[in-house]
Amino acid sequence: MVSNSLRNWKITLVYEGTRYAGFQKQAGAIPTIQSVLEKAIHTITGEIPKLTGAGRTDAGVHARGQVVNFFSAANLQPEQWRKALNALLPEDLAVYAVTDVAPEFNARFSAKSKTYSYRIHTCPVRPVFTRNFVYYYKHDLNGELMNRATEHLIGTHDFRSFQAAGSAVQSTVRTVNFCRLRQAGPEICIEINADGFLYHMVRNIAGTLILAGCGKLTPDEFPGIIAAQDRNCAGPTAPAKGLCLEEVFY
Amino acid sequence: MVSNSLRNWKITLVYEGTRYAGFQKQAGAIPTIQSVLEKAIHTITGEIPKLTGAGRTDAGVHARGQVVNFFSAANLQPEQWRKALNALLPEDLAVYAVTDVAPEFNARFSAKSKTYSYRIHTCPVRPVFTRNFVYYYKHDLNGELMNRATEHLIGTHDFRSFQAAGSAVQSTVRTVNFCRLRQAGPEICIEINADGFLYHMVRNIAGTLILAGCGKLTPDEFPGIIAAQDRNCAGPTAPAKGLCLEEVFY
Repeated sequence: MVSNSLRNWKITLVYEGTRYAGFQKQAGAIPTIQSVLEKAIHTITGEIPKLTGAGRTDAGVHARGQVVNFFSAANLQPEQWRKALNALLPEDLAVYAVTDVAPEFNARFSAKSKTYSYRIHTCPVRPVFTRNFVYYYKHDLNGELMNRATEHLIGTHDFRSFQAAGSAVQSTVRTVNFCRLRQAGPEICIEINADGFLYHMVRNIAGTLILAGCGKLTPDEFPGIIAAQDRNCAGPTAPAKGLCLEEVFY
Repeated sequence: MVSNSLRNWKITLVYEGTRYAGFQKQAGAIPTIQSVLEKAIHTITGEIPKLTGAGRTDAGVHARGQVVNFFSAANLQPEQWRKALNALLPEDLAVYAVTDVAPEFNARFSAKSKTYSYRIHTCPVRPVFTRNFVYYYKHDLNGELMNRATEHLIGTHDFRSFQAAGSAVQSTVRTVNFCRLRQAGPEICIEINADGFLYHMVRNIAGTLILAGCGKLTPDEFPGIIAAQDRNCAGPTAPAKGLCLEEVFY
């Protein structure tokens, strides 16, 4: 029931995805980010909220800047929302910011672009402190080769080769605004920003960049992989735990 | 049974202390770093090893560079030890380096100094990714004031005021070689190196530095706190989870 008194709330979330079955609500009692957050909102307001998330992160995927929106008739100030929600949410999920936005705002469809990061730990010793946040690759990777490969991904392309098999979307054309590597000690972090992402696109790009880093592909083969529009031409899907939704831009 | 074929092994460990009852073995089935590591060595060698650790970290305290030593007759190379142990150890405990050392080497008594870090998260939003590794303080801290206070701790002093009540050691005089603050975003990290530490010394120093950071003590009061040689004059014991044994020097 939409009335004049309903306000549209935009919430920025940070979470460790390790013990969640992804963002989106599912049948049964499996904890998802959406179900846990909707339950907390229900506890505060008595309402049955309907959350929209900017990115439907998979099981094990993290977020430092997921954005959701929902409508509520509750008469709360942003700081009251933030404190009330954080008091109810578990320790691996926190509300970072709350803003009152225009009724037209939709966390998913209003997004202009999103940035994801993908972290790879390459040291021969397995990571202990960051074990849930990185893909432990074990072997050396040539960051220089990976960096050269990323350059071919930038721009507007049909990214069908990097889409999970069996996905059905109208268009597989996306614009990658930047894709870059950061190296710090034994860790390589891929940062990628695009106007939208196909299903598993970042994890498939990460898996293919790793093939470049270990010499199984050359950077020059990347244009051909994109042009093939064939999932079989790209590398494997890198594990979920290395992926993090960093920021959503509106 | 000590024979000529026994070799003395020095092992550098990294662990997240969250689910352990500290370093030292205890009665019963409680997991400790020592009991888990000794069990792994026993599985490999069939021997009953006796580990000596450089620092007997408490429950919840982490290590990035704990050092232990033990004697074994097993005919293994350092890299074989490292791989065999890491294959058996749980994901929150890993062997970083293994070296064959002189029989005189004792991880605890041969140590010249140790460095500990203590991490404090001060942002109004609780930490999600680092929640097991930082003390979440919630309020602003003045790093400048804390830094000025640390200067009074450097040098050779009787640190009785920072020792857990009821401890019995021969001398409470220790030499602090450095004590400094690093600030990065919402996090303050205290790094302290000394030739030895009294029980709870770092956590009591951290708790007292926090009082300086929030204005309840001035840096100029620190010499008086040290001179008092009275635990009641110093601040509270900061929580275990912020503490990490960073490095042991020999």
